[in-house]
Amino acid sequence: MDNGPPRGTRDVLPDSVARREAVIAELALSYGRFGFRRIDTPSIEDINRLSWGEGGDNEKLIYRILRRGLDPVLDAGTRLADLVDLGLRYDLTVPLTRFYAGNAGKLPSPFRAMQIGSVWRAERPQKGRYRQFTQCDIDTIGEPSVLAECELLEGTLAALDAIGIDQVTVRVNDRRLLASIAGESGVADEALRSFFVTLDKLDKIGWEGVKAELAERGYPEIVAGRCEEVVGLLAGAESPDEALDRAGDLLPKLPEAVLSDLSTTFGALQRIEEASPGAVDSRLDATIVRGMGYYTGQIFEFAHPDAPSSIAGGGRYDDLIGRSLGKATPACGISIGFDRVVEMARFSPPDLGVAVLYSDDQAVAHVLEVARGLRSSGGSAALVVRRGQMRLQLESLKTDGYTSFVVVEDDSVSEARPLRD
Amino acid sequence: MDNGPPRGTRDVLPDSVARREAVIAELALSYGRFGFRRIDTPSIEDINRLSWGEGGDNEKLIYRILRRGLDPVLDAGTRLADLVDLGLRYDLTVPLTRFYAGNAGKLPSPFRAMQIGSVWRAERPQKGRYRQFTQCDIDTIGEPSVLAECELLEGTLAALDAIGIDQVTVRVNDRRLLASIAGESGVADEALRSFFVTLDKLDKIGWEGVKAELAERGYPEIVAGRCEEVVGLLAGAESPDEALDRAGDLLPKLPEAVLSDLSTTFGALQRIEEASPGAVDSRLDATIVRGMGYYTGQIFEFAHPDAPSSIAGGGRYDDLIGRSLGKATPACGISIGFDRVVEMARFSPPDLGVAVLYSDDQAVAHVLEVARGLRSSGGSAALVVRRGQMRLQLESLKTDGYTSFVVVEDDSVSEARPLRD
Repeated sequence: MDNGPPRGTRDVLPDSVARREAVIAELALSYGRFGFRRIDTPSIEDINRLSWGEGGDNEKLIYRILRRGLDPVLDAGTRLADLVDLGLRYDLTVPLTRFYAGNAGKLPSPFRAMQIGSVWRAERPQKGRYRQFTQCDIDTIGEPSVLAECELLEGTLAALDAIGIDQVTVRVNDRRLLASIAGESGVADEALRSFFVTLDKLDKIGWEGVKAELAERGYPEIVAGRCEEVVGLLAGAESPDEALDRAGDLLPKLPEAVLSDLSTTFGALQRIEEASPGAVDSRLDATIVRGMGYYTGQIFEFAHPDAPSSIAGGGRYDDLIGRSLGKATPACGISIGFDRVVEMARFSPPDLGVAVLYSDDQAVAHVLEVARGLRSSGGSAALVVRRGQMRLQLESLKTDGYTSFVVVEDDSVSEARPLRD
Repeated sequence: MDNGPPRGTRDVLPDSVARREAVIAELALSYGRFGFRRIDTPSIEDINRLSWGEGGDNEKLIYRILRRGLDPVLDAGTRLADLVDLGLRYDLTVPLTRFYAGNAGKLPSPFRAMQIGSVWRAERPQKGRYRQFTQCDIDTIGEPSVLAECELLEGTLAALDAIGIDQVTVRVNDRRLLASIAGESGVADEALRSFFVTLDKLDKIGWEGVKAELAERGYPEIVAGRCEEVVGLLAGAESPDEALDRAGDLLPKLPEAVLSDLSTTFGALQRIEEASPGAVDSRLDATIVRGMGYYTGQIFEFAHPDAPSSIAGGGRYDDLIGRSLGKATPACGISIGFDRVVEMARFSPPDLGVAVLYSDDQAVAHVLEVARGLRSSGGSAALVVRRGQMRLQLESLKTDGYTSFVVVEDDSVSEARPLRD
């Protein structure tokens, strides 16, 4: 009998749960200090809401849930889609937009939301990637100014710092800057979205691949060539400020507000760099796209030397909530890839307290009484049955995380002795 | 557009999440002091494991998940069951048995597991009952003696006490006592299971209903009559000890160990009653069955005057894990109905710290700097945009949970002033 969890998922053992819960508590505490408040939504959402066309590839990976009360044998020609009414959420942004639209009247404006929860994607299982994993998102809803971006970046960096993760590089871009580069290079407005999809693959396919994909769609090579040139000029700048100056020169149609907002963002990041030298580095990276179609302004990715891919990312999505709420509502958010950071986080294993060694021939009432006495002062005491060689058992208890032990005698108990050296 | 969560589920707003998380933290801390360690399993399980025949009515309520990669239009005669490979878990016991069977080699024996997580049941929605809800289970695996029962009861009562819930009545029964009453009354061994199913409805249908159901299955009225008589005699005892004495007299075939174990359990409960008078009361209740088929020994239900139904329950299930592990493994567990206790729990709303009032025409860098300065000493500071009458806004901030406020001036900041009276 196979006692493993479903393919692509995992069981989490006590030491790992302890680590995960401690890291979650630290992140939540740190975010809380910025005024982000935790909300919770169901794991299941209406299938039509999940399949709304903005979820990118994630929409192909939805776990679909059968309606209740269906007949056990299906009629010919039954459409699979007609059997389904719900799905497991694949991110925390779709639920957040619904939550805000449904509860806006009860929430302050701007509203700072924190979400820590599981999401499900039926991805091809591979090392280190799971079909159920944890996301940790903060979002500010109702703040139109760049204050939201600055605070989200600062909050995320503070949260990472709280779990001992520094040396973070924040790569900043703006969808409007990206659109301007595309426009100047000759990409038509209506083709912008598919251009972003292609550019998003730059990491994997390089500029040659981007050129080839654009050529397939009928764009002359010069278009991708111009993009590459502008991106290169921006990347060659010595500082974010210089990059923004160059962007101003190269992209005359780009609204001044886009550049001044980016300048404010880099200023806020600069203050954090000054406060904790070495903890964070930031730069403009005009190749960042981020997959989702819904971003409208600044976008971010957080890199770390020990992580093969981003540890966090996000951006502004001003049009998304309005679609549910029916009223224009600016929003911006950053998500930490919890499963990527949890192993990198600083963590002190829990102290399990006193191991109470007893034999299984001793009176239950007496054994319980001993443990109760040890706990009465507020500490932890776990009953452990005596087994095998004392020395080996004590070593194993020490490894498990107990700090001391007592031995239950038939009508008394030994003094507590330390297990740590 | 409907922005509500799926039917029968709910969104949880910040104040409620704060309460829920605080109660979970208290329960986890309290259970931890007894050596219970938290584990985690996926929300999804193999559909065959969930539909194993031991889940009672819950198996009819499973949210079933479609296989991936199915054709969009189905062939005639397709069986619905062939389209499904996974389901959402409806309790934490099925996952626990799989977890233990799959990881036994990495776990101590006995192993004390704590689980706090969501479960899903497609029940008819009704007030106060949700289709996604939280269970909080502790289980001891590998401890054959009544030490496990005593410790689980004590741990659960301590956890309830830690969240401010006392006046708990623990109703204790034993499946073997129940089987003995049935046998003495004339129920055949092979009919025991269906007899339990009927008896489990006693609360709703009364003894008349039990008699009618048994009559339908061909049992003469005298059978239910004898049961009612024995149950009545046990219920009429002045104390658990007297009830156990009566059971010994009335049920000569009942093994002595069943009674002595029950006596040990009541002794342990008695010690808790002595330590905290009024916090807990216990009694033998031979009408308790508990729905699941898998219980083999003592069973428990926890009642509270403010709760219309049990706030916790559990029992011993010695045969369940062996079926997955292929090796006899005793086990016992108690589950708290988290959603029932969370509203009854003691809880101090969180202190949101300083509200930093700013105007949206102020320089972002300055506003951020003020908040950063207030947080630098370790406290919380949330930016709140100035709006409407000052007096009304301050009242609302106080209601939200802020304890003080500052007002950002164009290039300075006011002194912090308290919001609480």
